[in-house]
Amino acid sequence: MSAIRQFARLPAPLIDYIVHKSHATIPSLPRIFSTSYQQKGSLSLETLDASKGDRERIVILGSGWAGYILSQRLSAKYQTLVISPRSYFVFTPLLSSTAVGTLEFRTALEPIRSKRKPNIEFMQGCADNMDFGRKTVTVEESVVDHQQGRAMRGDKNKESETSGQVTSVKEARRREGKRWEISYDKLVIAVGCYSQTFSTPGIRENAFFMKDIVDARRIRKRVLECFEIANLPTTSEQLRKYLLTFAVVGGGPTGMEFAAELSDLVREDLTKLYPELVPKVNIVVRDVAPTVLSMFDEKLSQYAMETFSRQGVEVKTSNHVQNLRPGLPSTDGSEELDIAGAQGCYTLTTKEDGDVGVGICVWSTGNMMNPFVQKALGKTYGFPSESATITSGKPFKELDANEWMIEKHPKTGAITVDDRLRVQLHTKPQPPSNSASDSNSSSPPSTPTSTAALSNVFALGDNATIRSTPLPATAQTASQQALWLAKRLNQNDLDREHFTFKNLGMMTYLGNWKGLVQTDGVMGDISGRMAWLIWRGAYLTMSVSWRNKILIPVYWFLTWAFGRDVTRF
Amino acid sequence: MSAIRQFARLPAPLIDYIVHKSHATIPSLPRIFSTSYQQKGSLSLETLDASKGDRERIVILGSGWAGYILSQRLSAKYQTLVISPRSYFVFTPLLSSTAVGTLEFRTALEPIRSKRKPNIEFMQGCADNMDFGRKTVTVEESVVDHQQGRAMRGDKNKESETSGQVTSVKEARRREGKRWEISYDKLVIAVGCYSQTFSTPGIRENAFFMKDIVDARRIRKRVLECFEIANLPTTSEQLRKYLLTFAVVGGGPTGMEFAAELSDLVREDLTKLYPELVPKVNIVVRDVAPTVLSMFDEKLSQYAMETFSRQGVEVKTSNHVQNLRPGLPSTDGSEELDIAGAQGCYTLTTKEDGDVGVGICVWSTGNMMNPFVQKALGKTYGFPSESATITSGKPFKELDANEWMIEKHPKTGAITVDDRLRVQLHTKPQPPSNSASDSNSSSPPSTPTSTAALSNVFALGDNATIRSTPLPATAQTASQQALWLAKRLNQNDLDREHFTFKNLGMMTYLGNWKGLVQTDGVMGDISGRMAWLIWRGAYLTMSVSWRNKILIPVYWFLTWAFGRDVTRF
Repeated sequence: MSAIRQFARLPAPLIDYIVHKSHATIPSLPRIFSTSYQQKGSLSLETLDASKGDRERIVILGSGWAGYILSQRLSAKYQTLVISPRSYFVFTPLLSSTAVGTLEFRTALEPIRSKRKPNIEFMQGCADNMDFGRKTVTVEESVVDHQQGRAMRGDKNKESETSGQVTSVKEARRREGKRWEISYDKLVIAVGCYSQTFSTPGIRENAFFMKDIVDARRIRKRVLECFEIANLPTTSEQLRKYLLTFAVVGGGPTGMEFAAELSDLVREDLTKLYPELVPKVNIVVRDVAPTVLSMFDEKLSQYAMETFSRQGVEVKTSNHVQNLRPGLPSTDGSEELDIAGAQGCYTLTTKEDGDVGVGICVWSTGNMMNPFVQKALGKTYGFPSESATITSGKPFKELDANEWMIEKHPKTGAITVDDRLRVQLHTKPQPPSNSASDSNSSSPPSTPTSTAALSNVFALGDNATIRSTPLPATAQTASQQALWLAKRLNQNDLDREHFTFKNLGMMTYLGNWKGLVQTDGVMGDISGRMAWLIWRGAYLTMSVSWRNKILIPVYWFLTWAFGRDVTRF
Repeated sequence: MSAIRQFARLPAPLIDYIVHKSHATIPSLPRIFSTSYQQKGSLSLETLDASKGDRERIVILGSGWAGYILSQRLSAKYQTLVISPRSYFVFTPLLSSTAVGTLEFRTALEPIRSKRKPNIEFMQGCADNMDFGRKTVTVEESVVDHQQGRAMRGDKNKESETSGQVTSVKEARRREGKRWEISYDKLVIAVGCYSQTFSTPGIRENAFFMKDIVDARRIRKRVLECFEIANLPTTSEQLRKYLLTFAVVGGGPTGMEFAAELSDLVREDLTKLYPELVPKVNIVVRDVAPTVLSMFDEKLSQYAMETFSRQGVEVKTSNHVQNLRPGLPSTDGSEELDIAGAQGCYTLTTKEDGDVGVGICVWSTGNMMNPFVQKALGKTYGFPSESATITSGKPFKELDANEWMIEKHPKTGAITVDDRLRVQLHTKPQPPSNSASDSNSSSPPSTPTSTAALSNVFALGDNATIRSTPLPATAQTASQQALWLAKRLNQNDLDREHFTFKNLGMMTYLGNWKGLVQTDGVMGDISGRMAWLIWRGAYLTMSVSWRNKILIPVYWFLTWAFGRDVTRF
């Protein structure tokens, strides 16, 4: 309590900055963001420092599979601080179920703040910058963020330059959130990825994504809304047909599971509520690849295709989406109605089928690196001599102080880590000496002269890739990495053994109480009802809290007994 | 199915209107809205007419306590059509619990469309106009309404004139939704009320209401958001104090129950998650009256006051709220921060305490008539000779055809009904002959010369008042009226007996597992833990579906065992 009253003793420039933020001249940035000012004045930071004691502070950026699981497993000998724009962890395999009402939204969520784990600290914000030399992270607050809980699609901070550190007052003022600096002993980068749209026009603005809980809520509302609008006397027969066409783009497990759950919703529940409309429903999955669920063995993916076909889900492969916009297709010959996208329908344009009217387009075509990894981590740093060791090339002294960069995968842009998940640095590549060798349109940069490994900065999950053995960007990879890292850090034996991935197999739901399970182990490949039972059993076992272990079967029972809830709000 | 294809056979003017809505000239309104055009062309209306058979159609406007309960109880010998802007019924006594996470939102909802009751038809829209002579209602669609699920505060259609029927094309175009006409054999007006703000500046824009499910969701999010912002290092000590001040305006059962639930949330859950912040929390209930819960006996309301005081809920009576705006109070001497209301705090101005910074202001000060009752039902009609009987005054033939109005309560504006809940008409009052008698500022209009009763139009719930015995505007009144009317209509014996209200008593929750119960019967007055048990038991019994009868105790158990879920999205 007494700590709070020290606010009055804050250094004058900071008080000025806080109080007169909008009017007064802003002192130069390095002064504002220097650790000493902020930390002395802030209740939260003082409390954090006080409760830290002589423990090491592990700062985890992100609360997805990697960040959340790691935070849960780290022992109390560390002070664990999670920094994430979301106040919860999303159990992503159940998102599709929540998007159609098989489960309630919160059954797929775990709050980061929890009574069970009082040693986990949380601050709601986004990492914005980092200093490996001073061992600090700059965080921008994001409690009130209207995009919160939705898939991030790269439209935040789109103005920020790639050109390096934040140095101008103007840019600082332009940013909305307030920022603070936090020091770390160990840092874990697990910020995940954004949804990949391949820059297809209109997707970012008009598609429904499938990454976060508000996405699921929006989809649930919109799907039921399409039926309700289609049922109105003022809806034309043509618009009705469009509204009841549900497009899913992306034939991976997420997209296919959503299509399956949607067909369950239509068949099991909406048939009774909208008997006239259900015959007009059209669920179409589109993928640019020649097959869907291509990660499964051919026999299983063949079974999946047959199951989908029996359930009336149409799968269109080698299909190229070119555009998505609100409004009716113009190919009808009639003038366009002046209805907004949400009230009317959307028009999806594909190379193969031209303009198609759809009620919703759910987009799930994989990942792209998020701007933090792309930009904030794309800068050059001085060599952090305290926490990095040269692994190849010239020794430290001969190198320019600001020539070090985080090593990234040349194709995906993911952070390259070694087999201990440690972030790797290399010196800035020199421009190729001979431009005539530029025969390929994107020539690889020349090999950097020196490389180094950070000893206290880790990257895991979707935003990282292990140099020696790239792994699929899945929840399984992320959680195995988190479990491994937690164990190593708890036991202080990071050098003892390197991380190895153990493929536990894959599962997916196909609708109508059928599934696919593919494992390397004794179980082998399973499809149908038994696979569905394994699918449900596995997710129930994996769900984190007892609260959800109780709630999930209750909702499964209620859905079976009474059907899905169709209230919309 | 074949009915659908008749769309092509729609009369040309209507097709023009639909297709060229935004461009073409619009035919005159009476033509568009004539029943024959719309009903012939529409799948929904044709299906509705086909499934009606020789039954009577009862159109129910509204899906609150009165409308929903009535729809559930009407026998299949009627075709029941519910028209409501919401796709669900809200079990209002549980709203406070959902607003703090004791229960999940959907436990307080029942969908109107339900497999259990296939004979109930539903169209999502708002009644907009009615014609008692032709026995039709005009409905405006409202499936996609961004205010949906929130308390209505009179800001929709605020431009519409009081001056009578929609006659100008211009006004019709200004309206957003599309409209259609539906015919009825019997009509039930149960549209409920809006939240009363007494035109206090800033309330409509900035207060959080407590009438619908999205209100509850917004409150839950905002309350937890206040704690999270208060916890940020960038939040000043002063802003922190404001954010943790929770204002409740209105000392009736709704406001007091919310304050009680909020203090439970803080004491039982947030203490462990934000130990440094909880001592700063300040819950203040304000009411303009000298007492709160004044409908209870003095002994009980005294007990309530003591219980609240022990839980740290401050009650300020005789307190006049004058304004609510986003931003910091300016009385601090410092310049205002440029933070938006949602990110910073709100400033509540009262006559007694001046400017006070608050994190949220929950507003619950009773009802006002909604614009539909105020305006659409405030017009003059021709005498609907088929469905009305003169009860006093001149016989029909001598009366001007357009001089009839719905009788309303002179003070509340509620629709006056007789003891059979039938809507009453009277002739338009003549201006007072002697203006010198205008001593009172709002002189009552002179007595109308003739009155009549509609035989097939009923009004019940909050928007109606029985001429002989005005009843409190409560869920109890509404549901008793609905049950009575359903029975009479099912048995066709409306003339047999009139409606009588049986006071079953009152209950309220006081927090900390204590309650109040007051009955006229054998139970008498009960307070404390036993009253809380009765409170929970009663609501569990009253909850409509088995789904919720199962879910509610599950959530009560989970809240007891694991605490409330604090994820925000």
